[in-house]
Amino acid sequence: MKTVGYAAHSADAHMQPYHFERRALRSNDVAIEILYSGVCHSDLHTVNGDWGPQPYPLVPGHEIVGRVIDTGSDVSKYKVGDTVAVGCMVDSCQECDQCHNHEEQFCRNGMTPTYGAPDRISGETTQGGYSKHIVVREEFVLSVPGSLDLAKVAPILCAGITTFSPLRTWQVGKGSRVGVIGLGGLGHMAVKLAVAMGADVTVISRSDKKLNEAKGLGAKGILVSTDEKAMQQAGSGFDLILDTVPVKHDVDVYVPLLDVDGSLVIVGQVGPMDDFNTFPMVFGRRRIAGSLIGGIKETQEVLDFCAEHNILPECKMIRPDEINDAFAHLSKGDVAYRFVMDMSALSLAD
Amino acid sequence: MKTVGYAAHSADAHMQPYHFERRALRSNDVAIEILYSGVCHSDLHTVNGDWGPQPYPLVPGHEIVGRVIDTGSDVSKYKVGDTVAVGCMVDSCQECDQCHNHEEQFCRNGMTPTYGAPDRISGETTQGGYSKHIVVREEFVLSVPGSLDLAKVAPILCAGITTFSPLRTWQVGKGSRVGVIGLGGLGHMAVKLAVAMGADVTVISRSDKKLNEAKGLGAKGILVSTDEKAMQQAGSGFDLILDTVPVKHDVDVYVPLLDVDGSLVIVGQVGPMDDFNTFPMVFGRRRIAGSLIGGIKETQEVLDFCAEHNILPECKMIRPDEINDAFAHLSKGDVAYRFVMDMSALSLAD
Repeated sequence: MKTVGYAAHSADAHMQPYHFERRALRSNDVAIEILYSGVCHSDLHTVNGDWGPQPYPLVPGHEIVGRVIDTGSDVSKYKVGDTVAVGCMVDSCQECDQCHNHEEQFCRNGMTPTYGAPDRISGETTQGGYSKHIVVREEFVLSVPGSLDLAKVAPILCAGITTFSPLRTWQVGKGSRVGVIGLGGLGHMAVKLAVAMGADVTVISRSDKKLNEAKGLGAKGILVSTDEKAMQQAGSGFDLILDTVPVKHDVDVYVPLLDVDGSLVIVGQVGPMDDFNTFPMVFGRRRIAGSLIGGIKETQEVLDFCAEHNILPECKMIRPDEINDAFAHLSKGDVAYRFVMDMSALSLAD
Repeated sequence: MKTVGYAAHSADAHMQPYHFERRALRSNDVAIEILYSGVCHSDLHTVNGDWGPQPYPLVPGHEIVGRVIDTGSDVSKYKVGDTVAVGCMVDSCQECDQCHNHEEQFCRNGMTPTYGAPDRISGETTQGGYSKHIVVREEFVLSVPGSLDLAKVAPILCAGITTFSPLRTWQVGKGSRVGVIGLGGLGHMAVKLAVAMGADVTVISRSDKKLNEAKGLGAKGILVSTDEKAMQQAGSGFDLILDTVPVKHDVDVYVPLLDVDGSLVIVGQVGPMDDFNTFPMVFGRRRIAGSLIGGIKETQEVLDFCAEHNILPECKMIRPDEINDAFAHLSKGDVAYRFVMDMSALSLAD
């Protein structure tokens, strides 16, 4: 299938229109016309080559919402016209214990990311959601509940599941004391989701300039991490802290905020962190953990949870030809809170 | 009560004989004649002032085995002649949720360490087990099962509980895949205890020169951390790794050894660690945690567990006047595996 998208042609390069082929439908494939595509900070990292060399030209995008336009002969779950979504993975081995346990993100044989990886059958490079169409095997296609505003669903597929999964894994519920470090794409979804689970949520930030925004999202308030007295008073007051900061930083300031057996879960920075001190970890059995998106079953759960609780990301809609400008804002951290591209503005004639 | 012990009189000072008074018995106190006193690496750190200024003269020692010689009027649990033990704590508030939950080591109001801290009632400095007698409130006195060889019990009170507690917290049992980094006082107890719990235990060390010792303790073998190929092959093969290394080090080499949801628990180093990389934590939901001794109930459990499974630390018996020489060996890491002082060689006339 012929399609068009925006691709990076080299590291640090600007995104440019790119015409390419999607694979012919396999029997278990679903062909999707993409309606909306979210812009994730990791897209920028990846096309910039920050996480290693990439198979350019590369079409990023793993927050995908669209409509089924065709199905393979064995597809039973979806039919033409269904509203569907695709997240950060498009395949996995489906045979290992992790896949059987609905944790395809930890597939023993390596899950296939939505873009920049070899397809498990053809070997061709997967290409992401900054495009007009995508073809994905049925098992990795999500169903979008009808009640959700389609234009705002896309960021749930990455920012949503990335924060929902640790909230579930660490069993957040009524009265849980949850801290959220950073109030960007991930952070604002973490606040909304944890509040909907019944938690007492506090945003932890360098300043209180986002106080009204934090409260508007449902947080109790902001704990200012540069205010030593406030930090000391808040000590041991959190069961779980989600750390959404997407750059190298110091966790020593945050770990003492955890109660005994509390966990600081890193979902922002994938890479080097500053040195750390074990003292508050030992004297409180505190933990530092990482978490990676979630499995397909859990991704469907977060979509359903958002529908049930009427939660949607805060989105700034852009046209696909504004992507370079959006990346510039993203690299400055100047986004409130997630760019979403309206792919209807892109046509094969572009 | 007059007693005698070995005290440090200043940071970096050698240990010298020291005559001092133990408090008069309170109604809930037990007076103990100390028979054996273990020598823990943290004793050396503390008297050296590595962990902050100390109230010298200071008598260290928190691995204490002895016999009851007197009891306060309200003591019901112990009688004169009983064989008892004292570990790293001698008091806590007994009123907070952590104390009620049998986790006195995390007492909200701060537990009272066995030495170098103000007594909760009199304010006088607590003094440890490198001495002939000690007076401790009943609730912090442990019962030593009769079947255990008294001369070797002492290290269970710190090295034992410090490794037993995380093995219990992280639910090690039959078939658990446990790694133990470092084969010293803590490490060798970790191996013995985990093996007795039914785990498959592997020692992780810079070389395989302790292979026979590791196997003798019940380990399957040694994973050599400097052997890149072996480390890669061992990747994701552990549910829990106990890190007993007592100095600043790098955990990045160990974290990828954990399976999904596995934990590296730091029980050796209390203080700074090298910088770390979140990549293996995120891509495997792996965790780094700390753990601190255990509560009094759990300390009794490890004593009973050791009696049931016939586990005893490997001890090198010394006389109290050999303590400076023992510290010299300890600072070089040249111990197999724990020095224990036979306190019968010390008398009030010394």
